[in-house]
Amino acid sequence: MPWSFDYLIVGAGFAGMTIAERLVSTKGARVLIVERRNHIGGNAHDHYDDAGVLIHRYGPHYFRTNAPRIRAYLSKFTDWTPVDYTIKSFTRDRYWNFPVNLNTFEQLIGRPATSGEFVDWLEQNKVSIENPRNSEEIILSQVGHELYELFFKGYTLKQWKRHPRDLDASVCGRIPIRTNRDDRYLKEEFQALPSAGYHRIFERMAQAMGENVKILLNTDYREVLPHVQFDHMVYTGPIDAYFDFAHGKLPYRSLRFEFESFEGKDLADRESVSGKPGFWQPAMQVNYPDESVPWTRIVEIKHATGQQCLPTTIVREFPEDFGAGKEPYYPVPNAESAAVYKKYKEMADALPNVSFIGRLATYRYYNMDQVVGMALAEADKLQSREI
Amino acid sequence: MPWSFDYLIVGAGFAGMTIAERLVSTKGARVLIVERRNHIGGNAHDHYDDAGVLIHRYGPHYFRTNAPRIRAYLSKFTDWTPVDYTIKSFTRDRYWNFPVNLNTFEQLIGRPATSGEFVDWLEQNKVSIENPRNSEEIILSQVGHELYELFFKGYTLKQWKRHPRDLDASVCGRIPIRTNRDDRYLKEEFQALPSAGYHRIFERMAQAMGENVKILLNTDYREVLPHVQFDHMVYTGPIDAYFDFAHGKLPYRSLRFEFESFEGKDLADRESVSGKPGFWQPAMQVNYPDESVPWTRIVEIKHATGQQCLPTTIVREFPEDFGAGKEPYYPVPNAESAAVYKKYKEMADALPNVSFIGRLATYRYYNMDQVVGMALAEADKLQSREI
Repeated sequence: MPWSFDYLIVGAGFAGMTIAERLVSTKGARVLIVERRNHIGGNAHDHYDDAGVLIHRYGPHYFRTNAPRIRAYLSKFTDWTPVDYTIKSFTRDRYWNFPVNLNTFEQLIGRPATSGEFVDWLEQNKVSIENPRNSEEIILSQVGHELYELFFKGYTLKQWKRHPRDLDASVCGRIPIRTNRDDRYLKEEFQALPSAGYHRIFERMAQAMGENVKILLNTDYREVLPHVQFDHMVYTGPIDAYFDFAHGKLPYRSLRFEFESFEGKDLADRESVSGKPGFWQPAMQVNYPDESVPWTRIVEIKHATGQQCLPTTIVREFPEDFGAGKEPYYPVPNAESAAVYKKYKEMADALPNVSFIGRLATYRYYNMDQVVGMALAEADKLQSREI
Repeated sequence: MPWSFDYLIVGAGFAGMTIAERLVSTKGARVLIVERRNHIGGNAHDHYDDAGVLIHRYGPHYFRTNAPRIRAYLSKFTDWTPVDYTIKSFTRDRYWNFPVNLNTFEQLIGRPATSGEFVDWLEQNKVSIENPRNSEEIILSQVGHELYELFFKGYTLKQWKRHPRDLDASVCGRIPIRTNRDDRYLKEEFQALPSAGYHRIFERMAQAMGENVKILLNTDYREVLPHVQFDHMVYTGPIDAYFDFAHGKLPYRSLRFEFESFEGKDLADRESVSGKPGFWQPAMQVNYPDESVPWTRIVEIKHATGQQCLPTTIVREFPEDFGAGKEPYYPVPNAESAAVYKKYKEMADALPNVSFIGRLATYRYYNMDQVVGMALAEADKLQSREI
């Protein structure tokens, strides 16, 4: 007798867990979640490492949102610790304020300056480009060659293994340029981390669902298909894999993470660099735009989590090609991949009983709040159907 | 088409995970683990609480063993932090060294003493009982009335809601009595906690098994039975539940845990009691034998984990009757329950395709190392069969 459910949900990240929680809690739906990894939470999963430091295992997740509905929804499962996410860039043998702002300009010219002077400097230096069509053009049109070379070009080449001119304007264009002293990395109104970590959100979602949801870990959903029945599938995996790569593989960039923990004297010795006890570097994130350095950035998430512990852990991110055994972290946003995705999207749209939700299933670099928003909207849609 | 496996394993605690790991890693068996809770690890599951303190969620788990094989096996999944588990008892408005030893005796008489004096005192005070048949008799025969009343009687009444004379001698008899200054709670050669927590052991076991094991959380195994096929079941749940309570319910004692976290000034103010910064009480575990106090003990596991964090968390344990919605923590070791268990054991022995393993399935208060040992032995036995 096949096991039957109202919904089969593939993937236990923000997309899958949010939809599952809504369908179970509001409709009493019977749901099976199938997850390839041995934990829930997807890439947002955080955990305490062997040094006892709370880390983001799959790259830093800086939660932020402008949407009251999304904030209210997630607040059912967590308290929040407000954070001003601040980052720096390390090049020419020193730390720079970043994203580019008036402080950065002063560091560049080596003396105090006013916003007016920086505006004038930008006017003289930026390249006049009517409609920037790629990531090189958008940065040149905003700040000119010197700052482009200093902060953007090398970083982008390393991260994407593509020249900025071969990437959509949105890639570099999402980084703000400011002529005031606003040092914040992000623009959204609400910037905060879940006080007890992201994993607690997912645990509480699972608790809230109770026995109406079964969670099957360590399992490729295809293994389950012959043995279960369900009315509707929510698929949050890579869309090209769902269709057996019928139109070829969508390009992704992957990452390798190298974690390193510090404590005792080794950490105390870093105080002169980090500026405060218990930390290794002066900001949560430091970018390394130089091509001679193999990593793109070093994240010390303890700056943001506010964890009260003596040790600290940093993580270096090494960009990698995507392939077997690698995780597909970043869809590559360019015209070519968009054309391939469009073909898959058409196939997906022709399947009324499968919802494609989340970063991988829609091949777009959504932030967490956007993924949750997409999941809430899809849950609404599914709930309004008669089952 | 039913989903088929070599083994269905019910429960993802030490028993189930160890057997699964052995069967998968040595025989390449295909295993489905079904777990009622939303996490693996059973009662040994530890996690970081909202204050960032590593806690034992289901009561303290003091790992110790004399068995090289068990230690070697678990060492594949963890490093160890050696611990001298020390506890105290709080009564007559002060902390006492415990288990009873020469230090305790000095506290009792209010002046320094020798082992010889304590031996003499015990000779004069202990009650001559040829073959102690219950927990009252065993303690009276070892230390006499005063120490029995002070440390054992009230504690046992609260914990078991039974008079010590209605409990097997083994219950109180397992606590050592020493005439030297050895303060250690436990006797085993190897006493240590997994350096990164118990949860990391279970995560690494799951990783080691890879895709040969599927882990189904939030699920009562009975829901799965109609939909899967398997050659053999390993059952680690309560044995009476397996047989639908055919011979009545086996008695258990349950517990309610009240966690409380401290930091900042509130915690600093406790230094005069705990004797060191960052701690709330002077030992990992403090027993409260007085019947007027509703909890039996307060555990501050940070003493043992060695976690380097500023906050701390204590947990008070309130004994409770077992019933719906409660966890069956302690089998009640007395003649009555042994007679009932014997009937279930006969039924279990008649089922060649089901193994009953672990505390709940054998109705015995085994330590973790004993459970792992039992699981390793059963895995050996199962592997030697032809499947």
